[in-house]
Amino acid sequence: MEQVTQAVNEMWLVVAAVLVMFMQAGFALVEAGFTRAKNAGNIIMKNMMDFSVGGLTYWAFGFALAYGGSSFGGLVAYGDAFFFDDPSRGSEWFFQVVFAATAATIISGALAERVKFTSYLLYTPFITGLIYPLVTHWVWGGGWLSQLGFFDFAGSGVVHMLGGAAALAGVLIVGPRLGKYDEEGRPRPMPGHSLTHGALGVFILWFGWYGFNAGSTLAAVGQDIASPAVATTLAACAGSVGAMAAAWTLRGKPDVGFTINGVLAGLVGITAGAASIGFGLSVVTGLVAGVLMVASVVILERLGIDDPVGAISVHGTAGLWGLIAVALFSGDASLLPQLIGAVAIVGWTFGISHLVFRLIEATVGMRVSMEEELAGLDRSEHGSDAYPEFVFQHEVVDLREPAVALQETTKTA
Amino acid sequence: MEQVTQAVNEMWLVVAAVLVMFMQAGFALVEAGFTRAKNAGNIIMKNMMDFSVGGLTYWAFGFALAYGGSSFGGLVAYGDAFFFDDPSRGSEWFFQVVFAATAATIISGALAERVKFTSYLLYTPFITGLIYPLVTHWVWGGGWLSQLGFFDFAGSGVVHMLGGAAALAGVLIVGPRLGKYDEEGRPRPMPGHSLTHGALGVFILWFGWYGFNAGSTLAAVGQDIASPAVATTLAACAGSVGAMAAAWTLRGKPDVGFTINGVLAGLVGITAGAASIGFGLSVVTGLVAGVLMVASVVILERLGIDDPVGAISVHGTAGLWGLIAVALFSGDASLLPQLIGAVAIVGWTFGISHLVFRLIEATVGMRVSMEEELAGLDRSEHGSDAYPEFVFQHEVVDLREPAVALQETTKTA
Amino acid sequence: MEQVTQAVNEMWLVVAAVLVMFMQAGFALVEAGFTRAKNAGNIIMKNMMDFSVGGLTYWAFGFALAYGGSSFGGLVAYGDAFFFDDPSRGSEWFFQVVFAATAATIISGALAERVKFTSYLLYTPFITGLIYPLVTHWVWGGGWLSQLGFFDFAGSGVVHMLGGAAALAGVLIVGPRLGKYDEEGRPRPMPGHSLTHGALGVFILWFGWYGFNAGSTLAAVGQDIASPAVATTLAACAGSVGAMAAAWTLRGKPDVGFTINGVLAGLVGITAGAASIGFGLSVVTGLVAGVLMVASVVILERLGIDDPVGAISVHGTAGLWGLIAVALFSGDASLLPQLIGAVAIVGWTFGISHLVFRLIEATVGMRVSMEEELAGLDRSEHGSDAYPEFVFQHEVVDLREPAVALQETTKTA
Repeated sequence: MEQVTQAVNEMWLVVAAVLVMFMQAGFALVEAGFTRAKNAGNIIMKNMMDFSVGGLTYWAFGFALAYGGSSFGGLVAYGDAFFFDDPSRGSEWFFQVVFAATAATIISGALAERVKFTSYLLYTPFITGLIYPLVTHWVWGGGWLSQLGFFDFAGSGVVHMLGGAAALAGVLIVGPRLGKYDEEGRPRPMPGHSLTHGALGVFILWFGWYGFNAGSTLAAVGQDIASPAVATTLAACAGSVGAMAAAWTLRGKPDVGFTINGVLAGLVGITAGAASIGFGLSVVTGLVAGVLMVASVVILERLGIDDPVGAISVHGTAGLWGLIAVALFSGDASLLPQLIGAVAIVGWTFGISHLVFRLIEATVGMRVSMEEELAGLDRSEHGSDAYPEFVFQHEVVDLREPAVALQETTKTA
Repeated sequence: MEQVTQAVNEMWLVVAAVLVMFMQAGFALVEAGFTRAKNAGNIIMKNMMDFSVGGLTYWAFGFALAYGGSSFGGLVAYGDAFFFDDPSRGSEWFFQVVFAATAATIISGALAERVKFTSYLLYTPFITGLIYPLVTHWVWGGGWLSQLGFFDFAGSGVVHMLGGAAALAGVLIVGPRLGKYDEEGRPRPMPGHSLTHGALGVFILWFGWYGFNAGSTLAAVGQDIASPAVATTLAACAGSVGAMAAAWTLRGKPDVGFTINGVLAGLVGITAGAASIGFGLSVVTGLVAGVLMVASVVILERLGIDDPVGAISVHGTAGLWGLIAVALFSGDASLLPQLIGAVAIVGWTFGISHLVFRLIEATVGMRVSMEEELAGLDRSEHGSDAYPEFVFQHEVVDLREPAVALQETTKTA
Repeated sequence: MEQVTQAVNEMWLVVAAVLVMFMQAGFALVEAGFTRAKNAGNIIMKNMMDFSVGGLTYWAFGFALAYGGSSFGGLVAYGDAFFFDDPSRGSEWFFQVVFAATAATIISGALAERVKFTSYLLYTPFITGLIYPLVTHWVWGGGWLSQLGFFDFAGSGVVHMLGGAAALAGVLIVGPRLGKYDEEGRPRPMPGHSLTHGALGVFILWFGWYGFNAGSTLAAVGQDIASPAVATTLAACAGSVGAMAAAWTLRGKPDVGFTINGVLAGLVGITAGAASIGFGLSVVTGLVAGVLMVASVVILERLGIDDPVGAISVHGTAGLWGLIAVALFSGDASLLPQLIGAVAIVGWTFGISHLVFRLIEATVGMRVSMEEELAGLDRSEHGSDAYPEFVFQHEVVDLREPAVALQETTKTA
């Protein structure tokens, strides 16, 4: 009996973790699709490697700092989990490592199209091995924030807002992409190279999010695993409706990019309260998240903060909203601890990230050269093209002009 | 013990629903891949929004009309499930909403490349909130069709044929795409812009279909959840073989589009009988479904019914065959009730859909203008391109001519 | 109680098999992405049809030869499983058929861009129906290799090395692609048409691999299903790091193709020992697998063996390493039986495959004509283009020249 219960709980955690792992593919596609073709291979490499390097880091010491046997004053864990080798905690580690990788991968999108591959690789171990583990210890490992009454069911704040704060720290240091702002500082649209890749990424993230939210029950027996799935569904639906409506109002058309990012905002928004907020209020939570995300994207762009995929708004802004929503819409949290927690998580994450990015900037440098950025990071950083056989618009611009001239010539001739 | 049993059953239903949810990505990719690049963003928006709007509709009243506590004469349910808020029925709602979204999304493919986004959005609540819920009440909610002996295990008729019938109603009103037929009414091929997207979509649908069919046991304990998975596998395999053979015979080559649509036809065909039909006869069911689908595509095209992705044939024709197959090949159903049910479902769905589409046609209009259709719905409806960086054939046609002329000139010079 | 235990185990096996089935999409994308656009539809067809034909073959006799009730001297099974129709063994068949399909689909990548579709279809039943079933009988069906002490938990050797050996046999007969080697026999790079498709394929394979490895416990109750998932994660992470480092050293840049293939090498490498090798040594296993794969790709290319996607190295070389690693790094296997098994599996697979390919070569022919190869297999074999709307580099080469000439002319004019 106990053996069956344990097997059911293990299976639930493993299946949920596998779903969350697949979100890596979703992030890679959203980020690649929303940026230019000349950087697609680079984006993929960053997504592949932040999971790979992050996974090894989390095995070596990240997990130990979050969930090692002992706690140093509720601030950091330690003990016997360094170079993790305990099969009895296998499912626990597996479920946690895919969360750590999610937090890490949020950043690559915000820094896309101009950050050095090596610099990105250098930063990754800090978030997966130090920044994120400490926060999880504070909140989910019995640390000081949990003792304060801070509540975050599946990580609106712990995972997403944290990723957004780290992304903001990075963006402020690398600065906007070449050509993003005109001489008077007005933002120019820089559409991504494939909406289908972007949309597929969003669908994959939505799919994997059921592991994220419903899996955060951590067990199946005696748990309500369905309600978080229902709340997640409703918030995602409402998030896209909210974002579509906001973008439609602002721009006069139902914008594809905003709408599909609205799904993600809805998902991020409900994550803290997926098991607490009732179904009707989940709709409200998602709707507000979608609208806030659109507003945040527009404001950040005007402030000169160039975030190619909207990662800061989707994860940071909607993540903060998620922490507030669970206090407003359920009895599981109250506003003050949520705000203290938000400040602590953002402060810690932004602070350390800023420091690390500065250090990298001062040594290897954060940003590729202007020539490399113009050529694209695929060629300059990896020596290859993502789509070597296709012809791109910039390649025929100089071709079209003489051809049109010829047309004139032959007409007059 | 009971708690463990309940947890196992809940987990099965939630996992299955998550798989079915992912089919939305499959539909989006099949439909985008099988149509032209200039409409890819629009197709994605329709698929994203029919799930989003449909999910909210199903939460507000769809579920209540299907599975509310009371029944009005076996025709429609009602009761306390409006604005669904009952956590104890969470997994049930979750499993049902992804089915409702499947029925809804079938239509977008058939209407692709010419229907207005707004009009499509207006129609969606009718299928998710009214048309589909009533049919599920009749068949799976203890309504009149189930009392008559009509049998449809996972929805060959209830989901797929219904979607196909609604799609037909829509196509008859919007008419064929510009250029689909020449002056003498002969159909012209209009190949989709990405076979890889189409094929990935089919693989995702196949993957998700295990949730659809094996999940329709609705529980795991004391149920045979493996047999539907085996039957589903075999029918899908046979469906692609059947369709490939039929297309090879007809056209002299193993056509990619027909073959991968054959997988879907096989899946649709076995859905009604996945738990009833033996493995050998599952092969037959899939094989026949694949051949019927090809025949149906060819016939509909000749009749002037322009269905860009073959949705009416894949879901409608193969769905009807599925209802018949389960009567022919198993003892769980008999032919007369199946035929009555098919007539009732098609009649009701086609009738209401026709009415709604006519209403939309008379008010906001169903179809975009000729200019918008030629420009592509991505630009005209959403103000963006799905692939803004790539060069398309139609863009270089006028470029090639003078260049070739020049080549002649320089040769003679 | 027993019923619940059985349900839990069944669910685990069905869910795992569904994940493994999805690997077919991963293979299709990796192979399509790593090869040229003019062959993408053909690659997809081969992947779709080796599963379809393979599934039917495995239903008709493959499963019987592997796991039929009786054994002929530990060499081949037989009995009542021909035309498989036993619902009580449903989950077992389902789990096995997706493994058989994995072994089969490895080959299509190695033979890509030049093998005839019909010839490939003719070969498929041999691997799914004969070659693979016998090996599984030897190892997992209680046959002679298992009696010898050969150990392969989830199929580094039984599935992957076997697929690699069959691929090698095929490649040696079809020879390299046109243009792969210059007049002095030096290999030329032939980059694939879409790194994003390739990377998505790798992510899907990684995702599905959890079904492959963790599912190979075959049951959940009383089993440790989490440890294989942890080992799999760590080996995949280390595989990409190892391959990236090796490629970086060799070529001076972190190559995208090698790195993402490194994930697959790591996964293949840990497959034999996923349940035996400790977590730390899983990292070592993956790291070595990644490095070996890169070395193997470089060596094979120099030897004139043209394997467009690196299938022989990823599955063959890393698979062999997996068999050795489990002997070196765990007590579950010892070196001699592992080497005997490796020789037996490779010998049998290569031998029969060579024979069958020779037979096909002598009758219908293995390779398309030079004209067909240049035109691309999509057009010549299937009469369609995968991306009919996009403009490709080779199409504008002749266009650019006169345009540049014109530019000169207009400048001087």
